[in-house]
Amino acid sequence: MSSKKYVYLFEEGNSDMRMLLGGKGANLAEMTRIGLPVPPGFTITTEACNAYLASGEKFPEGMLEEVFAALSKLETRTGKKFSQRENPLLVSVRSGAAISMPGMMDTILNLGLNDETVKGLADLTGDDRFAYDCYRRFIQMFSDVVLGIEHATFDDLIERYKRKLSLIFDYEIPAEELMNIINDYKNIVREEKGFDFPQDVKEQLSMAIQAVFSSWNNQRAIVYRRLNKIDDSLGTAVNIQCMAFGNMGENCGTGVAFTRNPSTGDKELYGEFLINAQGEDVVAGIRTPTPISRLKDELPQVYQQFVDTCIKLENHYRDMQDIEFTVEKGTLYMLQTRNGKRTARASVKIAVDMVNEGIISKEEALLRVDAEQINQLLHRQIDTSIDLEPIATGLPASPGAACGKVIFDADQAEKLGEAGQKVILVRNETTPDDIHGIVYAQGVLTSRGGMTSHAAVVARGMGKPCVSGCESIKIDLVGRQFTVNDVVVKEGDIITIDGATGRVLLGEVAMIEPTLSDEFETLLGWANQVKKLEIRANADAPGDAAKALEFGAEGIGLCRTEHMFMATERLPIVQEMILSDSLEAREKALARLLPFQREDFHGILKVMAPNPVTIRLLDPPLHEFLPNHDALLLEIAELKHQKADQRIILEKEELLKKVNSLAESNPMLGHRGCRLGVTYPEIYRMQTRAIFEAMVKLKQENIETYVEVEIPLVMDLAELELLKAEINDVYQQVKGETGVELNFVIGTMIELPRACVTADKIANQADFFSFGTNDLTQTTLGFSRDDAEGKFIPIYLEKKIIKDNPFAVLDRNGVGVLMRLAVEKARSSKPGILMGICGEHGGEPSSIEFCHMIGLDYVSCSPYRIPIARLAAAQAALNNK
Amino acid sequence: MSSKKYVYLFEEGNSDMRMLLGGKGANLAEMTRIGLPVPPGFTITTEACNAYLASGEKFPEGMLEEVFAALSKLETRTGKKFSQRENPLLVSVRSGAAISMPGMMDTILNLGLNDETVKGLADLTGDDRFAYDCYRRFIQMFSDVVLGIEHATFDDLIERYKRKLSLIFDYEIPAEELMNIINDYKNIVREEKGFDFPQDVKEQLSMAIQAVFSSWNNQRAIVYRRLNKIDDSLGTAVNIQCMAFGNMGENCGTGVAFTRNPSTGDKELYGEFLINAQGEDVVAGIRTPTPISRLKDELPQVYQQFVDTCIKLENHYRDMQDIEFTVEKGTLYMLQTRNGKRTARASVKIAVDMVNEGIISKEEALLRVDAEQINQLLHRQIDTSIDLEPIATGLPASPGAACGKVIFDADQAEKLGEAGQKVILVRNETTPDDIHGIVYAQGVLTSRGGMTSHAAVVARGMGKPCVSGCESIKIDLVGRQFTVNDVVVKEGDIITIDGATGRVLLGEVAMIEPTLSDEFETLLGWANQVKKLEIRANADAPGDAAKALEFGAEGIGLCRTEHMFMATERLPIVQEMILSDSLEAREKALARLLPFQREDFHGILKVMAPNPVTIRLLDPPLHEFLPNHDALLLEIAELKHQKADQRIILEKEELLKKVNSLAESNPMLGHRGCRLGVTYPEIYRMQTRAIFEAMVKLKQENIETYVEVEIPLVMDLAELELLKAEINDVYQQVKGETGVELNFVIGTMIELPRACVTADKIANQADFFSFGTNDLTQTTLGFSRDDAEGKFIPIYLEKKIIKDNPFAVLDRNGVGVLMRLAVEKARSSKPGILMGICGEHGGEPSSIEFCHMIGLDYVSCSPYRIPIARLAAAQAALNNK
Repeated sequence: MSSKKYVYLFEEGNSDMRMLLGGKGANLAEMTRIGLPVPPGFTITTEACNAYLASGEKFPEGMLEEVFAALSKLETRTGKKFSQRENPLLVSVRSGAAISMPGMMDTILNLGLNDETVKGLADLTGDDRFAYDCYRRFIQMFSDVVLGIEHATFDDLIERYKRKLSLIFDYEIPAEELMNIINDYKNIVREEKGFDFPQDVKEQLSMAIQAVFSSWNNQRAIVYRRLNKIDDSLGTAVNIQCMAFGNMGENCGTGVAFTRNPSTGDKELYGEFLINAQGEDVVAGIRTPTPISRLKDELPQVYQQFVDTCIKLENHYRDMQDIEFTVEKGTLYMLQTRNGKRTARASVKIAVDMVNEGIISKEEALLRVDAEQINQLLHRQIDTSIDLEPIATGLPASPGAACGKVIFDADQAEKLGEAGQKVILVRNETTPDDIHGIVYAQGVLTSRGGMTSHAAVVARGMGKPCVSGCESIKIDLVGRQFTVNDVVVKEGDIITIDGATGRVLLGEVAMIEPTLSDEFETLLGWANQVKKLEIRANADAPGDAAKALEFGAEGIGLCRTEHMFMATERLPIVQEMILSDSLEAREKALARLLPFQREDFHGILKVMAPNPVTIRLLDPPLHEFLPNHDALLLEIAELKHQKADQRIILEKEELLKKVNSLAESNPMLGHRGCRLGVTYPEIYRMQTRAIFEAMVKLKQENIETYVEVEIPLVMDLAELELLKAEINDVYQQVKGETGVELNFVIGTMIELPRACVTADKIANQADFFSFGTNDLTQTTLGFSRDDAEGKFIPIYLEKKIIKDNPFAVLDRNGVGVLMRLAVEKARSSKPGILMGICGEHGGEPSSIEFCHMIGLDYVSCSPYRIPIARLAAAQAALNNK
Repeated sequence: MSSKKYVYLFEEGNSDMRMLLGGKGANLAEMTRIGLPVPPGFTITTEACNAYLASGEKFPEGMLEEVFAALSKLETRTGKKFSQRENPLLVSVRSGAAISMPGMMDTILNLGLNDETVKGLADLTGDDRFAYDCYRRFIQMFSDVVLGIEHATFDDLIERYKRKLSLIFDYEIPAEELMNIINDYKNIVREEKGFDFPQDVKEQLSMAIQAVFSSWNNQRAIVYRRLNKIDDSLGTAVNIQCMAFGNMGENCGTGVAFTRNPSTGDKELYGEFLINAQGEDVVAGIRTPTPISRLKDELPQVYQQFVDTCIKLENHYRDMQDIEFTVEKGTLYMLQTRNGKRTARASVKIAVDMVNEGIISKEEALLRVDAEQINQLLHRQIDTSIDLEPIATGLPASPGAACGKVIFDADQAEKLGEAGQKVILVRNETTPDDIHGIVYAQGVLTSRGGMTSHAAVVARGMGKPCVSGCESIKIDLVGRQFTVNDVVVKEGDIITIDGATGRVLLGEVAMIEPTLSDEFETLLGWANQVKKLEIRANADAPGDAAKALEFGAEGIGLCRTEHMFMATERLPIVQEMILSDSLEAREKALARLLPFQREDFHGILKVMAPNPVTIRLLDPPLHEFLPNHDALLLEIAELKHQKADQRIILEKEELLKKVNSLAESNPMLGHRGCRLGVTYPEIYRMQTRAIFEAMVKLKQENIETYVEVEIPLVMDLAELELLKAEINDVYQQVKGETGVELNFVIGTMIELPRACVTADKIANQADFFSFGTNDLTQTTLGFSRDDAEGKFIPIYLEKKIIKDNPFAVLDRNGVGVLMRLAVEKARSSKPGILMGICGEHGGEPSSIEFCHMIGLDYVSCSPYRIPIARLAAAQAALNNK
C-alpha cells in the first residue's frame, strides 16, 4: 500500500539511523548488530510519528500492519505468542527521539498482560506474586501514560493496602492482595474513564503507540525542547521490545551505569542497580539503589559480563556510555546505551583522558566539551579550608555550591527565582513537572533518589548544584518545613548545599573562587593552539583583571569608568558636578574626581601591563548618578506636611527640578555616551587626563602600558573627530607637562545601526572598533532590554517568534547582518583595523562562533567566562575551517 | 607675484561668476555688461576671502596691489582721485556672498572721506551740510562695522544734539553742528579704541575689506547660514564702487524696488524710496519711505527710465528682480539687482504668470517655487466674514495671521518660543540681532520701517506673518507695554496680527482654514503631470480626510487608531480593559469599545472611498492610557495624611501598582506596536473586527472601500505571520456572519533596523511596506526624539555634527541607507510590493526627493502638507530624470 517503511527490526538498523529510529532505537539496533545481548524488538520510525501528528493523530496507512508483522517475527524468534494465555509475549513500549530527552517521554512495561495472560505468566514462572505484580504495574503505568489517570491515585491505594497489611515495601504484598489491588485498579479506570481497562492486547499496543506519539507534544516535552533548543519537527520513534524481567526474584535485577564517573570523569564503572526490580524503579528514584560494584559480590559472573560489555561499548562508540540493563534469572540483557550525560568537570576530564588513551584526537576533545556547560566549573565552591558542620549529607549528585531560601514547590521556586531571589528547591524527589522550578532555582536538594535520579540528571544537565538521596531530611509539606534530627528548617530559611560533597549546611557559607583543574588547563592549552580570536576580559577593577589574567585573558576589551563614579566617597562629588550650572563649577568638581580616576586606572593598568586595555569614557546618562525621583517627590510632600523649614524644602525642590530636567523618556536613546562628551567636553577631558597621568606614572615606574581610549555610542564620524581632537589636546598638555610620550590609540564602540552603515567613514578616524552588542541589539530590534526581558521576550520565546533571547545569544539574522556590513565597510577603508566585541555576547559560544565567522580580532567577556570563550573560539575555528 | 587674480572690474565679470564674485558682484558686472547705468567699481573675489580666513586673517599676497590698481582705473574713469582734497573719489564697500544673505553682512558708504577730503567734497558740491553729513555717517558706519563700537553710542549723541537744538530729523542739523558732532564722534573713537579715527584713506579701505572678510564668521552670519543651510566654506566677495549720492538734495534719493509685488505676486512695480537719503536709511527702516509710484510725480523722467530698466532686467534674468538704486541730482544709478525674495503666494503667482507670459516653461515654474516655503499658504487666516475692530493698522509686510503673547525683546521671545509658547515679537524696528527671536516668534509687529524693512524681509523669508511700520503704537520698553491711543497692551497680553491686511487685534481671533488660489491649483496640476510618487495623507478623522482630499490626497497612508482610544467617553473603558487581569474581562471591555471603533472607521472610510486607507493597529504602550504616575503617588500620600478611607487608599495603591507594572524604562523600545498584538491578540482582533464590520456596512450602503491593514513595529517575519493569521481569522468570522466579501490587504510598518535587514523575508508575507521613519530614525541613530530635540540636537547642530535635525529632514546617510537596503531586499523577493513612507518626513521636500530616488510608490503626510508634497514630488522627478 504505502511505499514507506515505517517499522525496522533491530537487526535492520544501525547507529547511523538515529534521525529515523531515534537515539534509543538506533543504539538498540547497533548493539544487536555487534552481538550484544539485546532482547529482540523493533522500532517504529520518527516519520511515522510525524505523519501521525500531521494528519491530526491518525496512524499512517500500513503502519499498524507492519507493526503486527514485526510482532509475528518476535513471536517466531521467542516461541511466545502475543495475546495467548500459554507462554504469552510481553513487550515494553518506549519512546526514543533522535536527541536524548531524559524523563520527557513515557515508558510502558509488561504490555500484553490481561486477565488471561497474567494467569499464563503465573503458570509459566510458577510465581503468582511476580505475575500479578507485573500486571499491577502494567495497569498503573498504562493508566497513567496512556489513559491520563494521575498515578498518585494508584499510589495512594497501594499505600492504604500496605498500611492495612502493615508492610513497608511493595514487593512484600502477597499475590492474593495484588489481585484485590488489580480489581481496585480496574475500578478506578472504569470510574475515571467510563470504560473498562482494555483486555485486547492489540488494542493495548495500538493505544500505547498513540500515547508515545502524542507525548511528543506534551507540555514537558515542549519545555524541554525549548530549553535545549531541539527542533520541534524531529518527532519521536517508538521501540517495542520483548520484556526481560528484573523482578522475578533475587537473581534478577535492573540497573543503570555509566562507563566512567559522570560527575568527576574518573575512569571507573559508575552506576546503581536494584535487585528484584523493574527499570522504572531505578530511574524514578523511588527506592534508593545500591552501587554497581555490589553486583560483583552478588552476581559475579553477570558483573564480569557487564564490565566486558561496557568496555566493548565505549570502544565502539568512542565515548563514555550511559547504559540500562536488566538481569533476568542470572542472564544479562542490555536495554539501552547512549553517550552519557556528564558534568562539565567530567566532560573535560573524559575528553582529555581519551586523548591520552589514544581514543580520540585533540580536535575531537575540544569539540566534545560543551563550551557553555563549563560555566559550571567557573562557579564558586564552598571554601574547604573552613570546618563546617553539615546538618545532613546526601549524594553528591551535581557539583558546585549553591545558597538560597528553602522552597518546597516548583511554582513558588519559579516565582521567586524569576523575581531575582535565590532559592533552593527541596523535594522528596523531582519529576518532569518540576523542571520549571529547577530552571529558576540555584540548586536542588532531594530526600530520595540516587545519582541517576531525575533531579540529579536534570541538575547536572543545567549545571546546577544538586544533593540527592539525602534521606535524613524529613519534609513536612503541610507545615512548610523539613527536619533533620531535631533541627527544623522552615520554608524561606537560608541553606547552602554542596553538590561536590553532598553536604547540606544552615545559612550562607563562605565560598571560594573557582580554579582550573589540570585537565582543564590542558584542554584550554589545546584551545589556544587552535583558536583565531584573541580573548579579552571586561574588567573594571584590578581584582577582576587579575582573575581574568589567571583564566588566560590577553587584554582588557572593556574597562567601564562609570562604576568608578558610584563609590561612596565619590558620588557626592559627581552629584555636585552634575548639579553645577557653570562650566567653572563643573571643572572644580571634576578636578576633585581626577585623583580618584587616576588611581583607578593606575591599578588596573599595572595589573594588565603590557597587554592592551580598552578604557571606555563615561557612558550612562548623568541622571543615573542623582537621587531617585519618586523618593524625592514623596520626601518633599512629607516635608511640606510637617511644615518644615522653607529653605530645606526649596533646596529639595531645586534638586527635584534638576532631577526632572535630566530625566528622560527613553534614557537608553538619550543624553549619554559620546553625547555627554560633546555637550560636556570637560568630563571626557578629566577622564582622559586621568588615563594619561596614570600611564605616565607607570612609565616612571618602568611599566609599559598600552591603552585604547574608547568613545561610546558614536553614530557619525563627526562625533569621533571632535572628541578625538579633545583627547589629543589633553595628551599634548600632559606630554608638555611631563615630557613623557605614551602608547595609546583612540577608537570607538560600534553599537548603533547608523554606526554600522557608516562604518567605512568612521573607520577612517578610528584605530579600533568594539561592537557593543547589548546596545546594538536594543536599537536593531527596538527592544529595551529592561522592558523586553520581563514583558514580552518570554512570550516571544513561547510563541516561537524568536528562538533565543537576543540579549543572550547574538541575533545573527538581524544584529549580525549589521555587524557583518560594518566589518566589510570598515575593512574597505582601513583594511587592518582592529575589531572586537565587548557586549555580553562576547562570552556566549554561539555568538563567539559568529564573531569568528565575520572575522573579528577579539572577543571580550567577563573574567569568569574567559575559559568558555577560549574553548568556544577554538570550536569556532574547528567548525569553520 | 601670485598667479591668482583676486580683483575683477565690473566690466570683466558676468552673472555666471557668482561663486567667485558673489551674487551682488556678479550682478553688478552683468548690469554693467548689458549697459545699465552702474557706478564704476570692482569686486574682490570670494577666493581672496577664503585665503584671508584660512591664513589667520592675512590678505593673500598681491591682493592689495590689485585693489589699488583697480582703484587707479576708477580714478581715470571718473577723473576723481582717492585721498585727494580736490574732487575726491569716494567709494562704498559692500559684502556680497554667492547666496544672498540679507542684513547679515555690513556696508560702508562714503569711504575716502577724512578731515581734508570732506572739505573738498564741500567745495565741489558747494554744500557744507551735505559733505559733513556724509562724513558723520561714514565715521559712524565705519566705527560700528570696522571698529566694533556700538552704534547706539553715536545715535545717543545725535539725539542729544537734536534735543538741544529742538530738531526732529537728522537732515535738519546744520553744518556747523555736524562739525561738532564729528569732533565728538572722533573723541568717542579715541576713548573707546585708544587711537585716532584713521585719516589715511588707504588704511580705511584696507580695514574695511578686512572687516567684510571677518564678518563672514560673525555670529549673525553663522546663524543665518545654519538656518538657511548655506555652506560655511563659500566665503564672501567685497564690492568697491564709486559713490552715487542720494543725499545731495531734493532731486536726489535712494530706493529699493521689486519688479513684481513680492507679497502678492501681482505684476506691478513695488518699492519705496526716500528723497535726499542714503541707501541704509531705507533698508534699516529708520525712516518710513514713500511708495515708488510717487517717484512718477516727483521725478517723472527718472521714473520712466527706472521702469524701462526694470523690464529689461526682468526679461534678462527671467525672474522677478529686487533692485537697489540711487538718484543723484536727477541721474539714475543702479546699485544692485538680484532675484527677489517673495512670499509663497507671490512665488506661485509669479511662476504661473511667467509661464502664461511665455517667459519660462512649466517645468521651470515647478522648480522656481520653494516647496517648503508654500507651507505659508497652508497657514490659517483670519476669518474675513467676521467684523473685527483693529486697535491699529500697519503695513501688510508678510501674509498670514498669527496670535501670541506680546514680547518686546528677542531673547525673551526665543526663550518662551523654545518652551512652546506662542509669542509675537513687538519692536520699533528689528535688526539682524533680533533674528533668533523672530525664529521663535509666531509673527512680528514693528512700529517703524516699510515693506522692505529688515523685519519684513526676514519674516517673509521665514514665512511668518509681519505687520511693519505700525506707527500708531508707542512702545514703552521700561514699562514693558505699548499703547495705541488709549489702549494699553502689556507684555504677555495676547494679540493677533494679520500680515495680509496689516491689522493688529486684541486677543485671539477666529481663523479660517487655508484654501488654494487658482494659480496654486494650476501649479499643482502641473505637478501631478510630472510627479511619480503618489501622495497620501496621515489622517485619523473624517474632517482631516476631507481636507486631505481637497488638497489632492490620493488615499490615506496612515490612519492611527490610538487617538480613538483617548476620547473622554472611551478612555475609562480602555483603562478598564488594561487593568483587567483576565482575558474574559479584557474581552468584555473590548466588546464595549468595538462600536466606537467601527463608527470611527465607517466615518473615515466613507470620506476616502474608493481610495486606499491604511489603518494601523494599536501602536503605543498601554501605560499611555493610564493616569500619571507622579500625580497618583502624591494623591496616595495625601490621602494617607488625611487618614482617608482605607478602601480608597487600597484601590489607588492597586492602580499605582498596575501603573508601575506597566511603566517602562524605555517605552519607545518597549511593550508596544505588534508586541501588544502578540501578547494581547484580543485587542487587534477587536480592531480588525471593527474595520471589517465598517467595511461591510459601507458595502451594504453601496460604497466600495479598500483597506490596508497595517501592523506596526514588526522586527521579524514571524510576528507578521502570527498576526496575519489572527486578522484573516477575524475576516473569516465576519464573512461567515455577513456573507460579505471585502477588499483588503495586510502589510507592515518598516520602522526598525532589523525589519530593514530582513525585509526580503518580511516581504514574502506582506502586501505592502510603509516606512515609519520617525521610529526608524530613533533606532538607527539611537536618538529618542523626546530627549534629543531638547537636549543635544541643538548642540549637535551648533557644533555641526549634524546638518539637519534628523527628525525633520531624513538622514540619507544613515536611515536612508537602511531604507534603500530594505527596498532592494523587498523587491528581490516580491518585485511589485507597494512601498511608501508615513513618518513626518513624508511631508518634507528633501526627504520626499529621497523617497523618489529610492523608488517608493507613495509618501504620506499631514493633510496641510499635501500640496507641499505634490510640488516636492514633481521637483524630485524633474531633478532626478
